[in-house]
Amino acid sequence: MTLPVELDRNNRQALYQQIVEQIKTSISNGRLPARTQLPTVRHLAKELGVTRLTVQNAYSELQSNGWVEATIGRGTFVSEDAYPRAADSSIYLATEQMTPDTVIHDMLEIHQLNADQVAGVRSMAVASPDTRLFPTEEFWNALLQLRPDVMSLAGYGSTQGEPLLRVEMAALLQKRSIYVTPDEILISSGTTSGLSLTTQALCQPGETVLVEQPTYLGMLNILKAQKIQPIGIPFDEEGPQLEVLERAVAQHHPRFFYTAPSFQNPTGMNTSQKRRHELLALAEKHGFLLVEDDLYARLSYDGPPPLPIKSYDQSGSVIFLTSESKVLAPGLRIGIIVAPWPLHERILALRRATDLGNPPLLQRALAEFLQQKGMQRHLKRVIPIYRKRRNAMVNALRRYMPESVTWTKPTGGFCVWLTLPRHHALHDIHRLALQRGLAVAPGEVFLARPSNHQHLRLSFGMQRPEAINAGVKMLAQLINERLQEDPEENRTVVDWRPLV
Amino acid sequence: MTLPVELDRNNRQALYQQIVEQIKTSISNGRLPARTQLPTVRHLAKELGVTRLTVQNAYSELQSNGWVEATIGRGTFVSEDAYPRAADSSIYLATEQMTPDTVIHDMLEIHQLNADQVAGVRSMAVASPDTRLFPTEEFWNALLQLRPDVMSLAGYGSTQGEPLLRVEMAALLQKRSIYVTPDEILISSGTTSGLSLTTQALCQPGETVLVEQPTYLGMLNILKAQKIQPIGIPFDEEGPQLEVLERAVAQHHPRFFYTAPSFQNPTGMNTSQKRRHELLALAEKHGFLLVEDDLYARLSYDGPPPLPIKSYDQSGSVIFLTSESKVLAPGLRIGIIVAPWPLHERILALRRATDLGNPPLLQRALAEFLQQKGMQRHLKRVIPIYRKRRNAMVNALRRYMPESVTWTKPTGGFCVWLTLPRHHALHDIHRLALQRGLAVAPGEVFLARPSNHQHLRLSFGMQRPEAINAGVKMLAQLINERLQEDPEENRTVVDWRPLV
Repeated sequence: MTLPVELDRNNRQALYQQIVEQIKTSISNGRLPARTQLPTVRHLAKELGVTRLTVQNAYSELQSNGWVEATIGRGTFVSEDAYPRAADSSIYLATEQMTPDTVIHDMLEIHQLNADQVAGVRSMAVASPDTRLFPTEEFWNALLQLRPDVMSLAGYGSTQGEPLLRVEMAALLQKRSIYVTPDEILISSGTTSGLSLTTQALCQPGETVLVEQPTYLGMLNILKAQKIQPIGIPFDEEGPQLEVLERAVAQHHPRFFYTAPSFQNPTGMNTSQKRRHELLALAEKHGFLLVEDDLYARLSYDGPPPLPIKSYDQSGSVIFLTSESKVLAPGLRIGIIVAPWPLHERILALRRATDLGNPPLLQRALAEFLQQKGMQRHLKRVIPIYRKRRNAMVNALRRYMPESVTWTKPTGGFCVWLTLPRHHALHDIHRLALQRGLAVAPGEVFLARPSNHQHLRLSFGMQRPEAINAGVKMLAQLINERLQEDPEENRTVVDWRPLV
Repeated sequence: MTLPVELDRNNRQALYQQIVEQIKTSISNGRLPARTQLPTVRHLAKELGVTRLTVQNAYSELQSNGWVEATIGRGTFVSEDAYPRAADSSIYLATEQMTPDTVIHDMLEIHQLNADQVAGVRSMAVASPDTRLFPTEEFWNALLQLRPDVMSLAGYGSTQGEPLLRVEMAALLQKRSIYVTPDEILISSGTTSGLSLTTQALCQPGETVLVEQPTYLGMLNILKAQKIQPIGIPFDEEGPQLEVLERAVAQHHPRFFYTAPSFQNPTGMNTSQKRRHELLALAEKHGFLLVEDDLYARLSYDGPPPLPIKSYDQSGSVIFLTSESKVLAPGLRIGIIVAPWPLHERILALRRATDLGNPPLLQRALAEFLQQKGMQRHLKRVIPIYRKRRNAMVNALRRYMPESVTWTKPTGGFCVWLTLPRHHALHDIHRLALQRGLAVAPGEVFLARPSNHQHLRLSFGMQRPEAINAGVKMLAQLINERLQEDPEENRTVVDWRPLV
């Protein structure tokens, strides 16, 4: 038999994954019914002009998910109980079950599917960089430098992080006007790990912290897992509202305020420098800490990146976190924490009770890449590309969205936050969009307390301008259709309308 | 000037690290006083016949630790406040401050120092494989296979673990007579991460779990960090004592019993098959779970590896953990968890709130290595080597130790557990040994409740037979010296004497 598989060698997706996805699609749509025998590895490899290992890997992955079964001596067959795992069945977004945890699951799942290319789903759900822009060549060359060191990198590394990487990270921080020695830096396994460890080090279950409203859903998920209560502080055009913040501090005595002042996820909003100074002054006055998430700051499209609060922290009130996930590659799982002593020591001790640190090899590969100035070159290359995508997003929203929809105007990062009128026909708009092949993030999971409105987060990092335009157009059409079904309700006043 | 640096190109240590360690030694012993100018990168590179990058890396690391200072345009100088960071100053073992956390810190620090080769410290403190035995060539070749997939591996991976690695892990588990599908496997960031997540998923702060007495100090550290109370269950020659276990279950209603039945760390003891069945029956009868740590099982020197308890678990009472850290390389930070549903789901959700999973690249490299049967070849090669080291250890103990000292006779793994008579002159024996250049692990940090005796854990994995012999000889001499200082006390009856 001949399998309906066509490989695209210009595709960023690995060849074996293309085979996997196309066979899955054929099983899902009935072209390959249960008990169909697949060609032998040898046969398919020859037919597709790939190595046997590639086909073997594809079959292994299909087998691992129950799509096919292999019987030694007989061959590989479509499984009797091959269950359709297309986007709309394994994705919670398609169901009523929705929590920060299930949404994170979905985003990663959609990302895994490489959905925009194969399964017919275009994703604006994940705030991820476009891995097609990853500087493969330069990073691989950095990795190859490590050949003589592999033996020592196979051993236990430093829980704090490889010294050479911390030297490079200290240099990166200098560019953010933060002057620390490499010994003051903790390497984390991405910002998720940084936030999780910081929260653990600072809070007991049952305690309260302040977050922005809306805020990063990963943080809400961490707080939920650690049984910490989040209180949401809304924005005005300058950033988090200080009067609300001060009242919440007096009432809840929070351990810290988690803020992402630069191109925040999910809104893309940027806290003004004045408001940053005021936030720091408030923290010092009331004795709470600021946990500053700088994850998106270097992705600044309309000027130099804003100064972080940490850069003028003289009192040790700011714990600073960032990572290379959004700027370079989430798959490295490398971030950093800069925390005042003795919190630094406490976080390090917790890391020893969590996983003993990041794998040394990838840390050293990143250190080599940074030392060879790979990051400067990478940013120079990708910022104009992301700027175009941001422009495409904002332009498409302006062109297609009905008047009752508003959105933020990000000057950096990957996210736009949409506010839709309160209308019963819009409550499952993200599910309807998914059915039409567009994944977007529902707004409610980014909120510490419920909002009067429907919100959506659209991420433009992973899509080309044309795809952004087409996606927004489709979404706007959908919203218009839904609103017209019951025009009576379409008159709610928008009371949360970010002004930036 | 000419630096006192000599490179050994047959050494497993990276060249830049050799430079770092030798310069540190020269600063520590006064050969390079404060404010001494070091040669330029270019000059030293030429002199040593290495690349400039190698010297640059060495200088960067020295700078990161405060040993040297670089002034642009002037050069690199020995720091004014270069503080001696030789083994006896940065190591808690040398002080009175001793907890599982500080001992773990020390072990990794000593490991980092590559102490046996440079700083004059021979380490039997860390239960680690010898990275000189790491199959560099084969692993590197596996890594090189991934060049076409680097882009997709730069993206977010699967929190559960890369499917291709889970396929290979399922195959490895079959060799342990455990039959699960790849979907039932969770990849963890080493066993530390597996134990930490499992404990978090099962326990609330303040609750109680049972552990072996003695037990893995990493587990005691995890329990302490999570505020869980450990109750120690002592061994007899067959394994954990069932009557004590049953009483503890009735009294404390623990959530689980943490057991490492195969070549346990720190004792090297092996629970009999009969006792394993009885443990499982007890767990089923009383409704507690067994957390089975299989970390060392494949390192079996006197016969095939023992069957894990999980292999006859029909009731879903066993959570099974293992990793590639001891068998292959700790630096991969890759382990697995097999847990019954819905615990599997709960652990996966916690992982999303911890760090989103392992980096995909190293998982795929390990998958390639396993697929190419690299592990079989590796085990075939290293087991005879470790067997010789085990023999050297046991023979040296028999030859040199005084009669009042007893020890376990491991048939696998890396550890021997020494029981010393209670004697005031022995209470800081590990510190005295360190002063003479031998790092061993003090026994008390492996104990959930205090013992009447002094204990030491000696690990033979990282040392060659001659070094093991010399180390044990020195330690025995030291013990003899101390006991002779006050022979009156040297008559305590040994009441904990493992019989295996």
